[in-house]
Amino acid sequence: MRALATDVVPYAYAKGRLRLLDQRRLPHEEVYLECESALETAEAIRALAVRGAPLIGVAAAYGVAAEATRVAARSAGDLDAALEAACDRLASARPTAVNLGRAVERMRRVVHDTATLPVDERLELLEREACLIAEEDEAACRAIGEHGAHWLLERLPLTRVTLLTHCNAGALATAGIGTALGVVRALARERTLTVLADETRPFLQGARLTAWELMKDGIDVTLLPDVAAASVIASGSVDVVVVGADRIAANGDVANKVGTYGVALACRAHGVPFVVAAPTTTLDASTPDGRSIPIESRDAGEVLEVSGGGAVVRIAPPGARAFYPAFDVTPAALVDAIVTEKGVSTRPHEKAIAAWSRREGEER
Amino acid sequence: MRALATDVVPYAYAKGRLRLLDQRRLPHEEVYLECESALETAEAIRALAVRGAPLIGVAAAYGVAAEATRVAARSAGDLDAALEAACDRLASARPTAVNLGRAVERMRRVVHDTATLPVDERLELLEREACLIAEEDEAACRAIGEHGAHWLLERLPLTRVTLLTHCNAGALATAGIGTALGVVRALARERTLTVLADETRPFLQGARLTAWELMKDGIDVTLLPDVAAASVIASGSVDVVVVGADRIAANGDVANKVGTYGVALACRAHGVPFVVAAPTTTLDASTPDGRSIPIESRDAGEVLEVSGGGAVVRIAPPGARAFYPAFDVTPAALVDAIVTEKGVSTRPHEKAIAAWSRREGEER
Repeated sequence: MRALATDVVPYAYAKGRLRLLDQRRLPHEEVYLECESALETAEAIRALAVRGAPLIGVAAAYGVAAEATRVAARSAGDLDAALEAACDRLASARPTAVNLGRAVERMRRVVHDTATLPVDERLELLEREACLIAEEDEAACRAIGEHGAHWLLERLPLTRVTLLTHCNAGALATAGIGTALGVVRALARERTLTVLADETRPFLQGARLTAWELMKDGIDVTLLPDVAAASVIASGSVDVVVVGADRIAANGDVANKVGTYGVALACRAHGVPFVVAAPTTTLDASTPDGRSIPIESRDAGEVLEVSGGGAVVRIAPPGARAFYPAFDVTPAALVDAIVTEKGVSTRPHEKAIAAWSRREGEER
Repeated sequence: MRALATDVVPYAYAKGRLRLLDQRRLPHEEVYLECESALETAEAIRALAVRGAPLIGVAAAYGVAAEATRVAARSAGDLDAALEAACDRLASARPTAVNLGRAVERMRRVVHDTATLPVDERLELLEREACLIAEEDEAACRAIGEHGAHWLLERLPLTRVTLLTHCNAGALATAGIGTALGVVRALARERTLTVLADETRPFLQGARLTAWELMKDGIDVTLLPDVAAASVIASGSVDVVVVGADRIAANGDVANKVGTYGVALACRAHGVPFVVAAPTTTLDASTPDGRSIPIESRDAGEVLEVSGGGAVVRIAPPGARAFYPAFDVTPAALVDAIVTEKGVSTRPHEKAIAAWSRREGEER
């Protein structure tokens, strides 16, 4: 049996230096960005050099640690003010994923709790907290993979499974094997698995990232233009759809990469299970429903140009306008299951989300 | 009031030479291809240099006339065999749009009916038939625009209308002002109109063609990544969706550019009228329903690379696979209205399609 692991390494941290695999340059080049400050880390998050709700939480946590190291090396006096500003900057780098703010709040608490300690100890404790956030995410991915695969295999007594996914909720989006792709990696150990990956315009996370990481791990993957997902689902050739999430509201409404909602509508029309896989750090019990989730609008330029491997193609006439909401909300009623590291919720999701959110609060 | 016209000229024919605006090179360059044979014309159709169900019918008709001129200039002896082969080749250049086969059959009938006439007269009658097909399409577009706008304005008593469209069913897809964009042009005379155009991966008909032709005619247009259509419809900001069609079956199932079905599902979920605009040459009463419509699969390379303005971006890892069905089928139950040059059909559509198909048969 293949190990539940991946060869994909999207980040590394040592001695105040955060290395981030620059996902804008995949699949053409594997190039790492070096971030030695909160500013550089926030910019990497904003510009999508690093993306994926859990991974931007991890990156931001290390960004605080890097900033602490940088400021401490110059003058320890203004460390607290610098770290407060760093936390603010990192938390606001992107608005939709709740993991980002949550990871930064954990780092901010360590900043406060260690205020009276010597600088060296503070740096160590900040690094340790960031490392803990990453390790927890890694463990959550593994548990999500196992829970999700177990749940699906009970419901899909098939020897061959065709799974469709949207965007990239994989090793490139987390500190582990991924959430949706954690389920994929766990299923691939048990069954003959075919993954259909939506290319996921405009950033092309599916074409550039999901295809790359699944091919690297030897998992069978075929790309679809996003426009083909509904008719491929209608054709009966998709057994299940599994996607990640950027924020899950108290009622089970799911914000995820734009396009997810359309896939969920097609699943409902054709009786295909629609499953969301995410760590409990993605749950936001304080947001009642999807209408309260802030949806990021990104620059029209990201729609109007396609770039890669050093080339740029402008796909629209000069002066063309575009609207690019980066996320959409899938109503809870369309979400057949939410898989977290704590287990699997079926509709209605309110109780499980409340229970998981309480337990997470208690554990801290 | 603005005239119901357009500045876009996608084809021209004179003396055995068919000039086609090469739509692969829009919006970067306005370059015309010269086709002087059926082979060149069929290749232009296959390669999407010219596309759009009505326009490929017109192009194929002129392709027969061009072939006749070419062969006659060399030796008149094998003209009939050459034209039979030309008709076969043109009719099979693409499988889904029924207009193509229908236009070629009209040309084939003229080939047969003129078999005993002098060559010069035959050439003139073939050119005249192609010209008639184009003129009929031009008139159909104008009538579709007027019928569609009238019908919509009765149902949408708004001073500002936001209309979403998918692909390009415009002047670049017809010999006139377009079908869906014929309705757009007619509405734009009457109301403050905003068009949201799906970019329409992978060939990007929306980004490259619809944006270009509407901007050229001074109509307000904003591009959307295809993935954003469902959530923009859910947001309540779309008043109506109007698309074209490549083939409409006897029961009202509509084959159109892949992605149309997903838009129709979102319309139904949010009570937004979903309207199909097409000439009666797109009706196929001999195909009972959508399951019988042949859906073209195109080469994966058209998904894996984006090109334009001389640059090419490969968007997936080397060796990646892709699946590209070029069309999908929207079931009749999701189609609120079908607008043809003969009028507007509301659900159920069978009777109108049967009546329009009969009338068309009688007129010939």
